[in-house]
Amino acid sequence: MPSPAITLTTDFGSGSPYVAAMKGTILSANPLAQLIDLTHDIRPQNVQEAAFFLAGCVPCFPRNLIHLVVVDPEVGSDRALLCIDLDGRLLVGPDTGFWCQLARAIGAEPRVYVVDVERLARKPCSATFHGRDIMAPAAAFLSLGNPPSALGSPATSWRKLDQRMAQIQSGMIKGEIVYADRFGNLITNINCEDLQNVNEPWVVEVAGQTVSTHVRTYAEVDPGTLVALISSFGLLELAVRDGSAELFLSCGVGTVVSVRERS
Amino acid sequence: MPSPAITLTTDFGSGSPYVAAMKGTILSANPLAQLIDLTHDIRPQNVQEAAFFLAGCVPCFPRNLIHLVVVDPEVGSDRALLCIDLDGRLLVGPDTGFWCQLARAIGAEPRVYVVDVERLARKPCSATFHGRDIMAPAAAFLSLGNPPSALGSPATSWRKLDQRMAQIQSGMIKGEIVYADRFGNLITNINCEDLQNVNEPWVVEVAGQTVSTHVRTYAEVDPGTLVALISSFGLLELAVRDGSAELFLSCGVGTVVSVRERS
Amino acid sequence: MPSPAITLTTDFGSGSPYVAAMKGTILSANPLAQLIDLTHDIRPQNVQEAAFFLAGCVPCFPRNLIHLVVVDPEVGSDRALLCIDLDGRLLVGPDTGFWCQLARAIGAEPRVYVVDVERLARKPCSATFHGRDIMAPAAAFLSLGNPPSALGSPATSWRKLDQRMAQIQSGMIKGEIVYADRFGNLITNINCEDLQNVNEPWVVEVAGQTVSTHVRTYAEVDPGTLVALISSFGLLELAVRDGSAELFLSCGVGTVVSVRERS
Repeated sequence: MPSPAITLTTDFGSGSPYVAAMKGTILSANPLAQLIDLTHDIRPQNVQEAAFFLAGCVPCFPRNLIHLVVVDPEVGSDRALLCIDLDGRLLVGPDTGFWCQLARAIGAEPRVYVVDVERLARKPCSATFHGRDIMAPAAAFLSLGNPPSALGSPATSWRKLDQRMAQIQSGMIKGEIVYADRFGNLITNINCEDLQNVNEPWVVEVAGQTVSTHVRTYAEVDPGTLVALISSFGLLELAVRDGSAELFLSCGVGTVVSVRERS
Repeated sequence: MPSPAITLTTDFGSGSPYVAAMKGTILSANPLAQLIDLTHDIRPQNVQEAAFFLAGCVPCFPRNLIHLVVVDPEVGSDRALLCIDLDGRLLVGPDTGFWCQLARAIGAEPRVYVVDVERLARKPCSATFHGRDIMAPAAAFLSLGNPPSALGSPATSWRKLDQRMAQIQSGMIKGEIVYADRFGNLITNINCEDLQNVNEPWVVEVAGQTVSTHVRTYAEVDPGTLVALISSFGLLELAVRDGSAELFLSCGVGTVVSVRERS
Repeated sequence: MPSPAITLTTDFGSGSPYVAAMKGTILSANPLAQLIDLTHDIRPQNVQEAAFFLAGCVPCFPRNLIHLVVVDPEVGSDRALLCIDLDGRLLVGPDTGFWCQLARAIGAEPRVYVVDVERLARKPCSATFHGRDIMAPAAAFLSLGNPPSALGSPATSWRKLDQRMAQIQSGMIKGEIVYADRFGNLITNINCEDLQNVNEPWVVEVAGQTVSTHVRTYAEVDPGTLVALISSFGLLELAVRDGSAELFLSCGVGTVVSVRERS
């Protein structure tokens, strides 16, 4: 049976020797490991972005894969390193809460283990690169067929990441932009269920503009038209056909977005 | 026997959760699939660039690979999704003509199939991300050993992409720049056969400059010299040794290039 | 037994058709080859950067892998193509000395072979892309189980790359910055052994600033503090906690750094 694949998600930058060093460390422990790059372009130390990224793509992967996630602003402190088992999907990374949004998205009850650093770490272990020296060895160890419980003891508490949820207030939804993709499409944190709280026809207010056209697909409108639609993540998205909503609206991650009944 | 590899070519950007979601979807359908990133940096919705890219690299790959190509400006419209069999090389992507330049380059007669969306699509299927919801499942289905004919019915017509060819006019060749690489080398659409139509010694006119030095390799001239040569794609290329022709000439994709006999 | 993996390190840019063409050429010769991207973002023709990159990550990889390194400023000249065996780690690339820093880092005695271009090259062989036409076939040939000696004759001489080492002068160390990572951390060429030559407590002078705080990890200081520490490469590093030393100091690769006893 082949080794389960290990995916890599980091903020190191895609051409970084740090990423290459992690790959080498994994292959040194398990020469048959399959490595799959997810992204190395998470903005530096941006755990929120990593959490959104993982919630958007990890549900597409089969169970029994290992997801190594190294966005580690507190490397070298006494923050723990965890292995989180979400219904058979195994994540390895620092205790930042990076996995909480994913757990909610797939409705999984987490089983969390604290990696036994003494036992797993490469010797010598650096003070500033635990991705290479502890987390990569831990992921490789799992890929050899060891269960998460062999990595360390069950954790009884862990950090939660404060995911900013949309708020429902007197028939109006208040959210924000959480991701801008390469096309300039703006993804909000307002989901389909949130939208049930506002009567049709609704409008979106963002950056001083009112968007009243909502469509199923970009192709329904003429080029240059600003529209609202439900993104492939199941979230409210603002887009300009054959253009960039990000440039059109001059706004981005963090901008407030509200939805209300058309008056 | 191992699964045939699936290559990925998109305009999503290399750190995109869309790419990661496609990889996950493929592995969910075929956990043994081998994934090979070609590029995710095609300029947004630029089918011409994708066509040039594929014609430049796919001929190097063996037959029996699956090339998944998601540059899809009309996602959500009624454009078809196709599987194109070029002498055993299988391409999956939207009906934009992205594969026509490649077919000409390798001299293959295409056999084209329309993907049966009803049967192949993930449920639920989004309106804006058919790369994840239809094309990735179709590619995974092929990688499991299914023939292209099992994806859907033969197509009787498809869109052709209008490849801008160089023109021969009264002993002169008129073409344009079609690609600028990372070194600033400028690749034109003028090929070796086109050049047979102009008597030696010829000169190249581009951006107000006349280039009369033609060489076999960069190493034949001094640093800083602007030269014409035949690129590794078999196309006329303008280059500056240890420098950038793109910066030297202040021009790029679309700039007119002509070749004529030296007067 | 599976094929040994082939890693790829180039200066072509990650979305380049040149990289894709090399992958295809390898798979045409060995359909079972495992391909692992290390980086394609080495600055154009910057052999020094490639040498630093490889010394930083290749020691993490197991033996018996093949590392294909295409940073080739003199492509088309009569520079040789080499295969270098460093205790079972096989590197393939042009004779630029790219591998010398790595050989020193792992303390390996090199066995060097000149690739027999006549025998290995793809026909036709381009004049400007030996990565695709000679080096990729050579790497694939090794991955099929052929020994380096089957690629060509032993080399008796080769180019050395002039690695700029830190200098010890009357109780002071003079070095320079050799790498800036994505976080703005500045890595110098001053290693731990060099630091034995200066009495504690020492200070670092760089870009008009004196850095007197040295720590084991970023987490020991408050955000915004400029510190000196030993990087995960075992080299003196300048960093700003939760910030960028590169921006803070407005300096980068090549900037002089000196370490002296605190007066």
